[in-house]
Formats: sequence, structure tokens, C-alpha cells
Amino acid sequence: MTDKAPVSRIPLTVLGTGAMGTALVRAWLAAGHPVTVWNRTPARAEALAAEGATVAPTAAAAVAANRLVIACLLDDASVGEALDGADLTGRDLVNLTTGTPAQGRARAAWAEERGARFLDGGIMAVPPMIGEPDSGAYVFYSGSSALFEEHRDTLAVPAGTRWAGEDAGFAALHDVALLSAMTGMFAGVLHAFALIRHEDVAPKDFAPLLSGWLTAMAPAVHKAAEQLEAGDYGLDVVSNLAMQVAGNATLLRTAEEQQVSSELLTPYMDLMERRLAEGHGEEDTTGVVELLDLRRGKDA
Amino acid sequence: MTDKAPVSRIPLTVLGTGAMGTALVRAWLAAGHPVTVWNRTPARAEALAAEGATVAPTAAAAVAANRLVIACLLDDASVGEALDGADLTGRDLVNLTTGTPAQGRARAAWAEERGARFLDGGIMAVPPMIGEPDSGAYVFYSGSSALFEEHRDTLAVPAGTRWAGEDAGFAALHDVALLSAMTGMFAGVLHAFALIRHEDVAPKDFAPLLSGWLTAMAPAVHKAAEQLEAGDYGLDVVSNLAMQVAGNATLLRTAEEQQVSSELLTPYMDLMERRLAEGHGEEDTTGVVELLDLRRGKDA
Ligand SMILES: NC(=O)c1ccc[n+]([C@@H]2O[C@H](COP(=O)([O-])OP(=O)(O)OC[C@H]3O[C@@H](n4cnc5c(N)ncnc54)[C@H](OP(=O)(O)O)[C@@H]3O)[C@@H](O)[C@H]2O)c1
Ligand SMILES: NC(=O)c1ccc[n+]([C@@H]2O[C@H](COP(=O)([O-])OP(=O)(O)OC[C@H]3O[C@@H](n4cnc5c(N)ncnc54)[C@H](OP(=O)(O)O)[C@@H]3O)[C@@H](O)[C@H]2O)c1
Repeated sequence: MTDKAPVSRIPLTVLGTGAMGTALVRAWLAAGHPVTVWNRTPARAEALAAEGATVAPTAAAAVAANRLVIACLLDDASVGEALDGADLTGRDLVNLTTGTPAQGRARAAWAEERGARFLDGGIMAVPPMIGEPDSGAYVFYSGSSALFEEHRDTLAVPAGTRWAGEDAGFAALHDVALLSAMTGMFAGVLHAFALIRHEDVAPKDFAPLLSGWLTAMAPAVHKAAEQLEAGDYGLDVVSNLAMQVAGNATLLRTAEEQQVSSELLTPYMDLMERRLAEGHGEEDTTGVVELLDLRRGKDA
Repeated sequence: MTDKAPVSRIPLTVLGTGAMGTALVRAWLAAGHPVTVWNRTPARAEALAAEGATVAPTAAAAVAANRLVIACLLDDASVGEALDGADLTGRDLVNLTTGTPAQGRARAAWAEERGARFLDGGIMAVPPMIGEPDSGAYVFYSGSSALFEEHRDTLAVPAGTRWAGEDAGFAALHDVALLSAMTGMFAGVLHAFALIRHEDVAPKDFAPLLSGWLTAMAPAVHKAAEQLEAGDYGLDVVSNLAMQVAGNATLLRTAEEQQVSSELLTPYMDLMERRLAEGHGEEDTTGVVELLDLRRGKDA
């Protein structure tokens, strides 16, 4: 019916049509993939039927429909529950449910025992970014590289793909590590907004300064990485720990003046002081990693 | 002696030739400004004499030498001490010493009482970035706009200039707010590095992902600013507080699996949970600002 030769897109199954599952399904449908969907609460899958998806009555039926099966459910436990009665033999299971590294590894072993190839994924995006090539959305994948290579084009439809390694836990490890860093950044951001709150500074004028500053400072992680690789926290230090600890006093005093709780900043400042007290004043703050490492005391 | 017409650069005084003061002096000397310097410990000013600066024997003499006087000393108290016996009448005092907003305001009143115009500055750079036009270095200025306008070209020599307002406390307020946000970001970054530490993930491979992710997420501050301006934390929410709190469990569980202390993340997570318990689950995390605001309980 079109003047282009029809391209055949591989059919696939999506388990879970919550906010994220629905966005994924829409991206694959838009790219011409036949999609079979299943959702525990069937009503939530109905809109997708109108958009061209085939709704399966059970998870087992949805798994039986296609070799490539994507799971995007609430958490790891719900993946186990949903797939309890399904025959996974010969399936390619791609788990886009957020979990921990250990859950990713255990789920990989579980899937392989059941005769499936397994890939774990960590989605670095919110649903509105899915299927938008310019949104910067991407997914970390780890586990079966054979599965990844074979389905890479299909997986690339909803979001960019990044290989995190054969260790099935690595997608979750990368995902959670980035989300953890972001959590710290947002904590700092809210402290900053609290500081200006009762002053004649408009948040919308302050926001570009804040965003610009954080963007300019983010590449400092490369220096930290070099120091960690070298095992030398004294490498190429510009602002040493002693100077930073001195500077923290101004941050705390300002919080006090502005009547802002310093509880989001003090744990890191306390660790800096502990490192300083342990004699690392000439080093960089990167050495604080040692104090976060709970294996340190044990192995020593 | 050159084929260009000589441009006359205004002479200025710099008090304090520590790491930052020295960098400032070098930038002004390189641009052709006559610079008089003073440092409490004279030895630390000597190298600059060889580079063309005039060394004054006392702070009072340095202040007497030029109308435009820059102070870049350890802290606000050292500014008071250094300038104790100096005659500030008719001087333009630019204080590039880091301090709090209240210190900036008090120092402005102090300088004005002594017959000087006053500008407070907050340097957003480390010394190696000074005098490097492409480094992104800049200084927030607040206080006398007349002083700022008159000397803007000279002030722009070592680093970019950003006007923060007539309130002399605003340079410090902006400075400290950005440094506080950065402190949160680096806390999160160190947690992230701690998570991958004992895994087969090279910090140098992880760093670009981390930097890219933080850079991609930094613009989220614009949304927060809109919500704060509107006084509506429910505005345009993509990931609401309830979802974020649920996601935090995965971050904490991962930290536990990786034997990483979660102390840098939990204070923010605890505040999210408090906001959730107060019935704001459908709102954005921006509402946590309310819990940081120590005036909140008092005014209510
Ligand atoms: N939304 C985001 O911004 C985002 C971003 C990155 C990653 N993710 C991840 O994507 C996954 C899905 O998130 P979402 O936003 O789509 O969540 P959601 O809208 O809450 O949907 C959750 C899905 O899981 C299903 N489910 C829950 N418990 C189940 C069980 N025991 N058995 C079978 N199905 C069950 C739900 O089915 P019912 O409809 O029957 O409840 C629904 O399909 C999560 O792991 C999330 O962390 C989400
Ligand atoms: N370095 C940075 O990365 C950076 C970045 C942004 C802002 N700043 C700010 O720039 C200012 C200077 O920092 P810096 O890095 O140059 O520090 P620094 O190398 O430690 O130098 C401190 C300067 O203050 C002088 N000083 C200390 N106490 C004094 C007193 N009671 N009376 C007179 N002079 C006194 C010191 O004189 P002596 O030589 O006699 O001790 C020295 O000249 C600080 O406010 C700092 O926060 C620095």
C-alpha cells in the first residue's frame, strides 16, 4: 500500500504496560514492530490494543507468542511472579525492570536455568523521553552479549543502547550508580534553592547559573577517576582537602545565616574532616571513597 | 617601542598574594596594568616584584598607592585586620575574599563608613583558571553598581564578571549557593565511585558516563525553579515523590550489596519520606525545600 518496500520488523512481547512499558510499546509499534502485550490488570493494556498491539490473556501466552520478550514491571519480585508459569525455553528475555546488581545476576541465572538467554537493562530516562531520538534516553544492557548483538537494532528503537558487560549485574550497577550521583546533586540543588528562598533572587534567574555551574563542574569526575585508577589521591590536586574543609565553614555559616538546615551537606563535610584528621589534608577529596567503603575496616 | 599605540591601563592594588591573589596579580600584569601588591608575609610577594609588581611595605601604603584596591585574603576577619590602619577615603574597595552574605553586607557598611565605595566578589574558579579567557572562570559582584560599571573592564581581566545585585551580600549568596550544590553533587559522585570500586568497572570508563549523566540532568533545576516561582510543587511533575521514594529503596539496597555506606544519600531520602508522609506524594521532590527552611516552623 506504500511506495516503499515493506521492511519486516521482528515481532516481540512486552510484559507490563505501566508508564514505562506503555512508552516502550508505543515506540516499537511506531517503528512497525508487531507487539504482543500483557499486563496484570488487563484494562491498562486496552489502549494499546487500539493502537495495534495484540493483547495476550496471560503472561505465559504472551511469552509463547514471540521469541523476544521484554519485561518492564514494578520490581524484580514482580518479574518472578509474572513469569512463574511461563515456558522460557528458547526465549530471549530482556528485563527492563529496575533492580539491584545482585537481582540482575540472580535473575540471569534463573532465566538460564529455564532455557532462556537473558539481558538485564537499566533505563536512563523517563517515559516522555522514550522513542524520541534526540531526548538523550538510553539503556544500559548487560548479560548475554549474543542476545544483545542479535537484537541491538530492535532494542535501539525506544532508546539508545549502552553495553555494560557480560556480568548481568552491571546494567543495574551502572544505572544505580548514576542515579545515586544524581540524588546527591539534587540534594545540593535543593539546599541552594533553600539558601536564596527568602532573598530577592528569582529562582528562574538563579537556575541558569546553577545549571551552568554544575555542568562546568561535572567533568571534575575525570580527575577523581584518574586518582582512583592510580590509587593516589594526591595526584594533580588543585584544591586540597585542607582547603575544602576550611571552605566548608563558610557554607555552614551561610546556611545558618539563611536559616537553612545543613543536614544535606554535613555528612559529606564530616567525612572530609575525618579524612583530614587521618592526615590526608594534602590529598584531594576523592579519598573520602575510602570512608564509604565498608569492606575497608573488615579487610584491614 | 611597539607599533601599536600604547593603551593606558588603570593602576591598582592587590592585598594578599596567596594562591588566588598571585593568579589575579599575574593576569593584571599580563594585561599591562601597573599593580601594587602587599602581603602580610613579604616573602610571598617577592616573586611578583620580579614580574613587574611594586611591593608596598604596609597595607596602608598599598591602599594609598591606588584608588582601586582589591583584597584577596583568607577570610573576612583578615580583611578587617589588614585594613585596620589604612585610610579608605575615596577608595574603591573590591573584596574578593570568600565570605558569607552577612559578612559581605557588614563589610560594605564598614567600608562606606570609612569613605570608600565597596564591591563584594565571589570567585567561581580555582587559580589555574584565572587569566584564561576560555576557562569559564567568573566572579559574582554585588554592592556599588557605580563602582562595578566604572571598573568593569579592569575587573574582567582575570575572569568573567556577573552582576549579582546592589545588595552587597548577593555575591557571597550566589557563590555559596553554587558551591553548596556542587558539594552535594560531589558527595553523590563519591558514592557512585564507591559502588563500582570492587567491581570490574574501570573508573576511567565510568567517568564519562557519570559526567554525561550529571550534565544531562543538571537542567532539571529549571523545572524546580518554575515550581518554586509558582509556589506549586505539583507543576509539570514527571517522576513524583512517591515514585522517587520507591526508587530510593533500590539505591539503598544496592549500597548494602556493594558494602558502601549510604550516609551521603540517606539525609535527602529521609526528607523525601517525610514529605511523602505529609501527603505530598503526587508532587515533585522540589517540595523538600520546605523541610530545609528553618523559618517554616517558626512563622507557622
Ligand atoms: N517511570 C519512570 O520514570 C522509569 C524510569 C526508569 C525506569 N523505570 C522502571 O520501569 C519499570 C516500570 O516502571 P513504570 O513507571 O512503568 O511503573 P508503573 O507505571 O507503576 O507500572 C508498574 C507495572 O508493573 C506491574 N506489576 C506490578 N506488580 C506486579 C506483579 N506482582 N505482577 C505482575 N505485574 C506487576 C503493573 O501491573 P498493574 O497495572 O497490574 O499494576 C504495571 O504494569 C520499573 O522497574 C521502573 O523502575 C521507570
Ligand atoms: N584558591 C582557590 O581555589 C580559591 C577559589 C575561590 C576563592 N578563593 C578565595 O580567595 C581568597 C584567598 O585564597 P587563597 O587561595 O589565595 O588562599 P591562601 O593561598 O591561603 O592565601 C591566603 C592569603 O591571606 C593572607 N592572610 C591570612 N590571614 C591574614 C591576616 N590575618 N591578615 C592579613 N593577611 C592574611 C595570607 O597572607 P600570608 O601569606 O601572610 O599568610 C595570604 O596572602 C580566600 O578567601 C579564598 O576563599 C580561593
